[in-house]
Amino acid sequence: MTRTTPAGTPLGDDFHVYDTTLRDGAQREGISYSVTDKLAVARLLDSLGVGFVEGGWPGALPKDTEFFARAAAGELDLRHAALVAFGATRRAGVPAQEDPQVRALLDSGAPVITLVAKADRRHVERALRTSAEENRAMIADTVRHLVGEGRRVFVDAEHFFDGYAHDPDHALRVLDAAVTAGADLAVLCDTNGGQLPTGLADTVREVVARTGFRVGIHCQDDTACAVANSVAAVQAGASHVQCTANGYGERAGNADLFSVVGNLRTKLGMPVLPDGRLTELTRVSHALAEIANLAPDAHQAYVGASTFAHKAGLHASAIKVDPELYNHLDPAVVGNEMRVLVTEMAGRASLELKGAELGVDLSGAPDAVGGAVRRVKELEARGWSFEAADASLELLLRRELDAAGERSAVPEAPFELESYRVLLDHRPDGAVVSEATVKVHVAGTRVIATAEGNGPVNALDAALREALVPHLPWLDEVALVDYKVRILTDASGTDAVTRVLVESRDDHEEWTTVGVHGNIVEASWLALRDALAYKALRRNANADRPATGPAAATA
Amino acid sequence: MTRTTPAGTPLGDDFHVYDTTLRDGAQREGISYSVTDKLAVARLLDSLGVGFVEGGWPGALPKDTEFFARAAAGELDLRHAALVAFGATRRAGVPAQEDPQVRALLDSGAPVITLVAKADRRHVERALRTSAEENRAMIADTVRHLVGEGRRVFVDAEHFFDGYAHDPDHALRVLDAAVTAGADLAVLCDTNGGQLPTGLADTVREVVARTGFRVGIHCQDDTACAVANSVAAVQAGASHVQCTANGYGERAGNADLFSVVGNLRTKLGMPVLPDGRLTELTRVSHALAEIANLAPDAHQAYVGASTFAHKAGLHASAIKVDPELYNHLDPAVVGNEMRVLVTEMAGRASLELKGAELGVDLSGAPDAVGGAVRRVKELEARGWSFEAADASLELLLRRELDAAGERSAVPEAPFELESYRVLLDHRPDGAVVSEATVKVHVAGTRVIATAEGNGPVNALDAALREALVPHLPWLDEVALVDYKVRILTDASGTDAVTRVLVESRDDHEEWTTVGVHGNIVEASWLALRDALAYKALRRNANADRPATGPAAATA
Repeated sequence: MTRTTPAGTPLGDDFHVYDTTLRDGAQREGISYSVTDKLAVARLLDSLGVGFVEGGWPGALPKDTEFFARAAAGELDLRHAALVAFGATRRAGVPAQEDPQVRALLDSGAPVITLVAKADRRHVERALRTSAEENRAMIADTVRHLVGEGRRVFVDAEHFFDGYAHDPDHALRVLDAAVTAGADLAVLCDTNGGQLPTGLADTVREVVARTGFRVGIHCQDDTACAVANSVAAVQAGASHVQCTANGYGERAGNADLFSVVGNLRTKLGMPVLPDGRLTELTRVSHALAEIANLAPDAHQAYVGASTFAHKAGLHASAIKVDPELYNHLDPAVVGNEMRVLVTEMAGRASLELKGAELGVDLSGAPDAVGGAVRRVKELEARGWSFEAADASLELLLRRELDAAGERSAVPEAPFELESYRVLLDHRPDGAVVSEATVKVHVAGTRVIATAEGNGPVNALDAALREALVPHLPWLDEVALVDYKVRILTDASGTDAVTRVLVESRDDHEEWTTVGVHGNIVEASWLALRDALAYKALRRNANADRPATGPAAATA
Repeated sequence: MTRTTPAGTPLGDDFHVYDTTLRDGAQREGISYSVTDKLAVARLLDSLGVGFVEGGWPGALPKDTEFFARAAAGELDLRHAALVAFGATRRAGVPAQEDPQVRALLDSGAPVITLVAKADRRHVERALRTSAEENRAMIADTVRHLVGEGRRVFVDAEHFFDGYAHDPDHALRVLDAAVTAGADLAVLCDTNGGQLPTGLADTVREVVARTGFRVGIHCQDDTACAVANSVAAVQAGASHVQCTANGYGERAGNADLFSVVGNLRTKLGMPVLPDGRLTELTRVSHALAEIANLAPDAHQAYVGASTFAHKAGLHASAIKVDPELYNHLDPAVVGNEMRVLVTEMAGRASLELKGAELGVDLSGAPDAVGGAVRRVKELEARGWSFEAADASLELLLRRELDAAGERSAVPEAPFELESYRVLLDHRPDGAVVSEATVKVHVAGTRVIATAEGNGPVNALDAALREALVPHLPWLDEVALVDYKVRILTDASGTDAVTRVLVESRDDHEEWTTVGVHGNIVEASWLALRDALAYKALRRNANADRPATGPAAATA
């Protein structure tokens, strides 16, 4: 927690990859991190090997204060990154050591502090409503105070490019106030995001030449040039680059960490991450999307699921011969993969390939493959999607193998549903109660069970467990991890169906199943049923193993 | 249909905005245009004032052949743009006039033809499997033949930048073959999308200096720099820029037409569109997303719904004073608008600003503002989000005004719920039935009504209408347009709550309301209730108008 420089990156302190997902990224419309989320984000960024993780604004946002407290208490063990607290300079007319906001930055325990300072004279006058002199004094005093308390300090020169265009002298004197007072570097911020690479690079070059200061760059994407601007600034002399995961941020967003790192490493040859971490780019990007509860952008440079996919007829045959002619990069370098899209959604070849990936051997079973292709197309036309539901797809493939008379691959269903009924009551006193009753046949018995739950699906799951666990105790090992709902509407809006994804887990693995129906509870039931059937399948496979595998000989 | 140059753009033929949404954009995973779609796309692009619309590859794709036939038959009346057919040069060893694919280009009737030609020697040898000489002859023969038939010809030099880096002499001789044979210009294509602006601009500058040819630029987004690369190429001497709407295209996509045009016009001052068309940018972008059946990207530069939205507490108070300090551009210039987001980061200033946007005057009502801030924060901590639910927020603000004793702003609730009960049956025969019963008080009566529906929420909505419409016939004007569900899970996964957004519409407007609860049906109920309350509010406001407004005097 006390490290102030990045550890273990080949460029050491000479070049900073500085992530601000947890502060500037969190400004994106729709993102709302819990403290637990924030800790998970910081760990993922650290595992990628970024040099600095800006954790938030302690003292301004209660969640951020708590994040730093929990980090300081030992919940965050960063291997590569130094932790950074973001905050403002002291208020006008108040000594730095008496400003509670400045105090909160020190109390956060963060070894590095980034201060935001106004570099555009118009902002000083019109928004801050103070003089240029007092603005510079606020910066210098606060930097000096924090440095005196043993912290490393960076200064974000907000609205720098607009400010420099409007009044270069004022903007440069702000940088001077920061660096002279002890800040390690000044970050030139394109806060409004209006810059283009050529002009921005010229300014960076000029500022470095005129001041000799170490400068960083912070770009917003309002001209769709944030990544290009960041890279151009580095080429022009910036040695500290601020990014956010997947470009999350206010308005059009920030410079995307993964594209910037991908470009610096693979196009400019700069070793900006520790050895072996570049292959984590795709995984970390998708995991961070998951935590932000946003769908990953399939078309994102380097890390998108479609970014190395080819569907052009022009290319398809040539790609087979010579993939490197048609990709700017071997996708494996960034942990991504090439896909060739079949224009019909599920062709025989892609299903066979997918089967092999899932451990279902479909070679020599043409009828099963044909049946599976038909079944998948029919289901996808009704709104099913197997892209994220491998467990449901594996069950489907095995059922088709069975139906085609191949060696039976699916165990008998461990139970059968006769019926269920769910009751939802909003009572006159305002209380809302969900209750489910299931009637099932299991182990030769008919069982009826009723349970309450937090919502209809939770009640149904509870009743099902109530009925089954006494007969199938292994079902108790299955925990529901996540539950996602998507309403699929056709053009008229009337025939909406609901697609439910259920993520389950036992001590060995996690798996995802899917259900689709006009009724959300029935869709959930279909996904739940598959989740339990998959557990039964795996349990059978494991039970078989000692009898047939090499372990049996020594038993 | 016979125009070969752009009409009515201020730069005339000196600068080309060339759109290839219908050909290269259609390569995007998930896009499948019908011929009718293609005609609609071409009309929208033309209405924006682009110079060239590339319609597809006649002869290679049946839909594209049909598109050109219907265009030629009079279904496409372009005002600004010249229509372009895309195709390949003659095959190796076949005279151009005998090649059926070349024939199809002429038969399309398109006045302008863009030929793709291989500029990278490795592609000629390994993919085309012919010699560099024959490749150049294929280009020259085909260009000469088409020009001889009265067509204007452009040549896309595919993989130009990789090819130039590998063997500059070969790449330049390909350009020479095209231009010497009569092509108007050669388009330098970053087909694999691996370029960065600085290197790409250097190459463009060098090629222009060495050849003196007119060149165009075509960029893919694999380094997230397609827009920046396009602009840098224009600054380096390219006078023809190929883009696709919203950056649609294979892999990471193409250069986004709207960002490129926005940058050229507002940052570099180039009048690339006819007067008055820049304000159509946002509308056309969204309409083209609609036709592609893709959600518009809320964070897209210039045109995204969130691109001029502000949620930072830091900025909100200053934005109120001086919006131009915080936007790189007046959003009205591109037909977009500024929004203030209400979130947990929001303070009093942003709520007041948002209130003004919604027509709720909170000035001089500090208690109401304070109450609203507390209420919003409390609800957002429990999973509510008002970012996308303006109607719920307006009701909240008006209720706080009432509570603070200000002039009553919300009408009495038009009805009161006593209780509801929803029954979901999965019967032994497999049928799934949803039935809801509501007990409500409306117009002094207690009404009980029961209805079936497609799922629990649909049944509840149906029962509610059954109960209320006889007493409040205006409720029948409200249609449910969309329904979105989001499960919000905390880290442990047990205390999940459900957030429901309901989008409603009558003949005058659309509005969105939100509900959050552990039980999805109750969350839906809360959103439904607000949807009807909002309708009642608007109805009252409209009913009041003739009685109090100037219209009353003449009535």
